[in-house]
Amino acid sequence: MSTNTLPDIKTSFPEWYQEVIVQADLVDTSPTRGCFIIKPNGYAVWEGIQRILDEKIKQEGVENAYFPLLIPEEFLRREEKHIEGFAPEVAVVTHAGGKSLEEAYVIRPTSETIIYDAFSRWIKSWRDLPLKVNQWANVVRWEMRTRAFLRTTEFLWQEGHTAHATYEEARAMSLTMLEHYRQLAEEYLAIPVVIGEKTPYERFPGADTTFTFEGLMQDGKALQMGTSHILSQSFPASFGVRFQAQDGTLQSPFCTSWGATTRLIGALIMTHGDQQGLIMPPRIAPTQVVIVPIFKSDEEKVNTVAAAQKIATELRAAGVRVVIDADEHKTPGAKFYHWEARGVPVRMEIGPKDITAQHVVLVNRMEQDKTKKKTFAGFGNVVQDVNVLLESIQKALFDKAKERRNSQWHQADKLSEFGAKLDADNGMFQVGWCGGQLCELELKAVKGTIRCLLNENKHKSCFNCTSPSSRDILIAKCY
Amino acid sequence: MSTNTLPDIKTSFPEWYQEVIVQADLVDTSPTRGCFIIKPNGYAVWEGIQRILDEKIKQEGVENAYFPLLIPEEFLRREEKHIEGFAPEVAVVTHAGGKSLEEAYVIRPTSETIIYDAFSRWIKSWRDLPLKVNQWANVVRWEMRTRAFLRTTEFLWQEGHTAHATYEEARAMSLTMLEHYRQLAEEYLAIPVVIGEKTPYERFPGADTTFTFEGLMQDGKALQMGTSHILSQSFPASFGVRFQAQDGTLQSPFCTSWGATTRLIGALIMTHGDQQGLIMPPRIAPTQVVIVPIFKSDEEKVNTVAAAQKIATELRAAGVRVVIDADEHKTPGAKFYHWEARGVPVRMEIGPKDITAQHVVLVNRMEQDKTKKKTFAGFGNVVQDVNVLLESIQKALFDKAKERRNSQWHQADKLSEFGAKLDADNGMFQVGWCGGQLCELELKAVKGTIRCLLNENKHKSCFNCTSPSSRDILIAKCY
Repeated sequence: MSTNTLPDIKTSFPEWYQEVIVQADLVDTSPTRGCFIIKPNGYAVWEGIQRILDEKIKQEGVENAYFPLLIPEEFLRREEKHIEGFAPEVAVVTHAGGKSLEEAYVIRPTSETIIYDAFSRWIKSWRDLPLKVNQWANVVRWEMRTRAFLRTTEFLWQEGHTAHATYEEARAMSLTMLEHYRQLAEEYLAIPVVIGEKTPYERFPGADTTFTFEGLMQDGKALQMGTSHILSQSFPASFGVRFQAQDGTLQSPFCTSWGATTRLIGALIMTHGDQQGLIMPPRIAPTQVVIVPIFKSDEEKVNTVAAAQKIATELRAAGVRVVIDADEHKTPGAKFYHWEARGVPVRMEIGPKDITAQHVVLVNRMEQDKTKKKTFAGFGNVVQDVNVLLESIQKALFDKAKERRNSQWHQADKLSEFGAKLDADNGMFQVGWCGGQLCELELKAVKGTIRCLLNENKHKSCFNCTSPSSRDILIAKCY
Repeated sequence: MSTNTLPDIKTSFPEWYQEVIVQADLVDTSPTRGCFIIKPNGYAVWEGIQRILDEKIKQEGVENAYFPLLIPEEFLRREEKHIEGFAPEVAVVTHAGGKSLEEAYVIRPTSETIIYDAFSRWIKSWRDLPLKVNQWANVVRWEMRTRAFLRTTEFLWQEGHTAHATYEEARAMSLTMLEHYRQLAEEYLAIPVVIGEKTPYERFPGADTTFTFEGLMQDGKALQMGTSHILSQSFPASFGVRFQAQDGTLQSPFCTSWGATTRLIGALIMTHGDQQGLIMPPRIAPTQVVIVPIFKSDEEKVNTVAAAQKIATELRAAGVRVVIDADEHKTPGAKFYHWEARGVPVRMEIGPKDITAQHVVLVNRMEQDKTKKKTFAGFGNVVQDVNVLLESIQKALFDKAKERRNSQWHQADKLSEFGAKLDADNGMFQVGWCGGQLCELELKAVKGTIRCLLNENKHKSCFNCTSPSSRDILIAKCY
């Protein structure tokens, strides 16, 4: 295991990804088509994301609830665009309790339909609004091409659903959650994101507006990291959701839905990994510091392990997540490799000479410059120095990712100019667009897609047909 | 709503239960057969249980992971007893992605099979043991007679699965988790439980030993609140789980599994509710204190709400979960009723006279004696007095439930003597048993079941056949 090397991250990024998640022990394959087992090392990252996001969700007055996994198949048909979008992807339960069912159920691909059915009972008057619920749940979408975390038949997510009396309120709610997602991505996962609006052809099936936040991975391809929608007013109406407004009229509410999934773990890996494996941003890292006592004799072992335990206790009291690796069956080198592959941001080494010198060695996982990679921390300063180092790694990871992203964010005018470069080198291209689907489809030739509409208007004409453009778009290849 | 009254808790307990969960806004019916929507008020209790239990689980070195929802149907067949037990209950996915599947999947009724398949890859040597994982997940069992929280087609739970090198270690693990469940039930949910072993005929399908913890509800019926199993050694073996022992031989590990579900919420309701509705034990109550400012004029409103907010801030800083109900569209009486039905253990009233007197009124939800129900707390003592009151309610709820349970725990010798009493009055009967299934089946006539085997031997002969008994059992009607 300690002699494995990863495929070259620059030339073989997909192979690198497939291998790094195995070496870091994040997932395992499963006997279920398109599904992966999320192993403890991977699930701990999801628990961290849940903790951060759940607090943000509750801060907005949204309450957690739980709705059934199985949805009557007929529900999906009530909203025309919704069934068009999801029919090819659903898993269907036709038998249960030893019998064939009279009415089939689909496993939720998303829960708007069953939640609007409940809203039709819960919402009667404007006094019942806004109504805001969220659920942490699993969903199933039968995907043909699957890849761990990025696209799987079953995935874990949160899905928030709110109903409001006015469009303005619904829009504000949708954008507020998008901003929370941005904060989660940038401040915790250290992934710089672009926020914007999807084109009409890329909207969620049944939405009037879909906002997205997108990251640019190390290979120059974009990843949609999550979305927030304003639903068409007819969607809740098709489930009989109506309320008596303050003026006495009967109206349909304006609804939002927004979700973030285990795909965020994939984004993390593809943004920060390097040739040695994962790099976990300290604020989300399940283990922030691994302490490796270095010993040869039994006496050295006793002393270095005791020192490690004392320091670990101090660090834990300060809220740092620490593991001690004192396994005597493995060499220090094998341990270094093991924890590097798992992306632990700081390694601390304590050998007999360090004890004599009353200091520890801190090794920065992301630093490539060998003269800066190792530093010493005096016994009295360990907690402070570790915290400073963790925060500096958090910042450096974000800065590095942002610099890379910016260097791959190009301004362009015409497809004939940038098309070949996109096709060959990936990256993002900010251009003008007439708003027409025909021009959007022209991007297929260079494997490009419109990632989102921006709130800028630097480019005055369409990248394809040269008609006037009132809003820039961002084009990239994508996952 | 404020004029609703509940069915009589003494004479119409099932109807009382059905109604109290609706009035307390815990659940709603759903269009999915046998499934209920867990509304925010109900889900908040589950979040509390998760928080407590997750910490206990991690304390034992068990790590959370996530395994697929869908299990190849063939997996269930590999263990004879397991398929016998679960075949009549599974929901089957036969179509997905618009096509008929070559191999059908069942929605997990429990995950031993797919987890042992993973264990067969993860466990090679004794060095890989013990292996301890848990998942928080939904499961589906197609139940014919459903009742919210107690028995539903889909339910939420945690399922822990561990593998060990020796039987002794597995047994210790299984009993350790049973002890954590007991603590959760008694120390947080304030439900006294009996812990014991299931008879061979009541074991989990595929287990050698099933431990249970059982509560006695207010109607004198027992409720199995959760179980912990030692699996038959052949179960993991049928998935090829083998390890090389320290002596070089190839062996099958000894496995445990243990689960607790949303049924615990039902146990809480049926243990502590009264004629006014729910009573939430303070340690698990999502809202521990509701503050109701009492006002008539606008000026009084401003003053009492300001005082309520100041006190709420102090209480929150001390970790108390507080809600202020300052709704001017509802009378104080309607609010009292509303929060009583929801089981909030302490109500605080602040009116203009209370502000003058520099105190608040504390109202104890569970106290029936009107002379003790209300007390005053000086502004300077609110935090301390509230905490003392909350802890005293926590203790009083447990003591009351235990006293009731003990008064319904009878010693008996012969079915001919206690049968009629069990049939008419419910309660638990501790008796001797020969260990034979024929005697166990005789209990059907009085709707009795053996809840568990105890570690006592007060009764020397079987309750039915009078053959010698080496271990007492507990008999009750059950949910």
